[in-house]
Amino acid sequence: MTPVNLVLMGMGNVGRAFIHLVGEKSGLCRERYGLNLCLKAVLKTNGGFFAGRPLDPGDIAGLPASELAKHPAWKPGLHLDDVLKSVNPGVLVECTPTNLHTGQPGLSHITRALKKKWHVAAASKGALVVNFKGLNAFARKQGVSLKYSGAAAAALPTLDVGLFSLAGTEILRIEGILTGVTNYILTRMEESFSFQEALKEAQAKGIAEPDPSLDVDGWDSAAKILLIANSVAGMSFSLKDIRREGIRNVTPEDIQKAGKEGKSLKLLARFDRRKDEPKAEVCLTAIENTHPLFSVSGTNKGIVFFTDTMGQVTVTGGKSDPRGTAAALLKDIINIYRQEWSPCL
Amino acid sequence: MTPVNLVLMGMGNVGRAFIHLVGEKSGLCRERYGLNLCLKAVLKTNGGFFAGRPLDPGDIAGLPASELAKHPAWKPGLHLDDVLKSVNPGVLVECTPTNLHTGQPGLSHITRALKKKWHVAAASKGALVVNFKGLNAFARKQGVSLKYSGAAAAALPTLDVGLFSLAGTEILRIEGILTGVTNYILTRMEESFSFQEALKEAQAKGIAEPDPSLDVDGWDSAAKILLIANSVAGMSFSLKDIRREGIRNVTPEDIQKAGKEGKSLKLLARFDRRKDEPKAEVCLTAIENTHPLFSVSGTNKGIVFFTDTMGQVTVTGGKSDPRGTAAALLKDIINIYRQEWSPCL
Repeated sequence: MTPVNLVLMGMGNVGRAFIHLVGEKSGLCRERYGLNLCLKAVLKTNGGFFAGRPLDPGDIAGLPASELAKHPAWKPGLHLDDVLKSVNPGVLVECTPTNLHTGQPGLSHITRALKKKWHVAAASKGALVVNFKGLNAFARKQGVSLKYSGAAAAALPTLDVGLFSLAGTEILRIEGILTGVTNYILTRMEESFSFQEALKEAQAKGIAEPDPSLDVDGWDSAAKILLIANSVAGMSFSLKDIRREGIRNVTPEDIQKAGKEGKSLKLLARFDRRKDEPKAEVCLTAIENTHPLFSVSGTNKGIVFFTDTMGQVTVTGGKSDPRGTAAALLKDIINIYRQEWSPCL
Repeated sequence: MTPVNLVLMGMGNVGRAFIHLVGEKSGLCRERYGLNLCLKAVLKTNGGFFAGRPLDPGDIAGLPASELAKHPAWKPGLHLDDVLKSVNPGVLVECTPTNLHTGQPGLSHITRALKKKWHVAAASKGALVVNFKGLNAFARKQGVSLKYSGAAAAALPTLDVGLFSLAGTEILRIEGILTGVTNYILTRMEESFSFQEALKEAQAKGIAEPDPSLDVDGWDSAAKILLIANSVAGMSFSLKDIRREGIRNVTPEDIQKAGKEGKSLKLLARFDRRKDEPKAEVCLTAIENTHPLFSVSGTNKGIVFFTDTMGQVTVTGGKSDPRGTAAALLKDIINIYRQEWSPCL
């Protein structure tokens, strides 16, 4: 049995779902993968949970914000360095809010963890978008894994498929619907909602954030195609290299026009290496009903890889919710530690 | 640079495509993965190519059958054991014809290779269908990898997604269109061909075999769902446990009836673990246009995994031709040797 020490940064929806999932899946991880998940610490900006022995996930996941500080393991002002210096390396699980311009606070967390030879599984995108090559090179130098499925469409497998399932191919082109929120809004607009109505509904359902700009202005899709193209096709895109369009200005007329032509308006993230100059972009595109992403609707996501030897491989689905993202983090953690891919016998 | 010795069994369409691909991708394998592919021997039933130094793939891949024995490296009567005893272990690439009842000749090849601690990448299904647990346990005991993406829908990633991308989930249910030939015939029948006309066309195009029974009677789909369910869900199905239906008796009326209801008739391979007794079966099913496999037509394939934490993940596409199968073999070989999944920097 391999002990896997976990330190979680951030206790928003994804962080809480991850704590819950660790409790739910600890038996399965022991039995199927020989991994003993030990949640050693959970940190927020103003303090964190940390005790000598592993935390009980069930004990913490459901605590309302007002009760956190009353928990016996709560340490006000607890800092990540306090934890890293007294716990054997395991995996830092980065779930703080994404800032695509500074990369913080994830960038600082990930850098500190790599310095101490911790593996990293990230759901936040900022750090990797801001310093993709630097962080990957540093992780390699330190001999640890830096994984970020949780940041690259989460429960929809994108990086795994590109790096593992399509190993040995040349990935010539990628097209993806990578943001559940924008796809949900566009689907509702096809059902005759206005942009504002659809956005409000998405916010009321907790699908869209109170400040929806990261999603509706195409930043989220741009960040994801950056992570995917840089990872699976060896590109060096920065966010500024990616032409980006959002969905704020989509009118009911745009939707109807596409519909009349038998098409569906989607916010596509695209990468193309076939031209002289490889290009990544996010743009509104009316796609035909023969396009493999045509029927990806609502909060669903999808990605198409166009390869030289395996043809076209499309992946769709994967839950767009905190539990799905938590499951993507757990998948990365399991794959960091497992030595082989043999069947469950 | 890691040398990777390859011994290929079988020189049919897939074997030849594999030889060709080794030539085409040797540079990429060196640069991207640090692997030096060395094709050490190619064996047929009546002899094989084997020389002191690696074979030149370009030199052999295109040889017509009548010219094989004139090649300087051709050794009449060459046996696998002769090769295994004089070459350092690498990967045995099994591409002989599939026999689902005896598993031969693949079973003998794979067993001999594992005994000598060779890894195995198989495109033939027979051996694994006949002795799934035994071969996997033996490979594990020998400390080598036994991979068979090439036998489990090839360029459509099925095992990778189940074992790697969905690690940590419970796979509750699987539905797949796993045989390109039958899907092609059903698609043509939707375009008003009779079964016999569609079959003849498929044979003329080289899509269907002269004896098409492995495909049209559902054996191929049954073998694939067996391999997939046993691998990703820890099942112990034998071929006799799988209720199986073919497409020989499909009438134009059946196709029309489905069409009138807005449905499409597909040969679905299914696995369900949610009942008291896990079940795998292959059956003709009229699926709704909201089903994620509805638009999988022609020789395309697809698979849907229904999971507890990541929702529903669908993969479609992947070339159904010898080159796609060869690419799946190469993918397995790369993934046997690589130590990490970090991005191509």
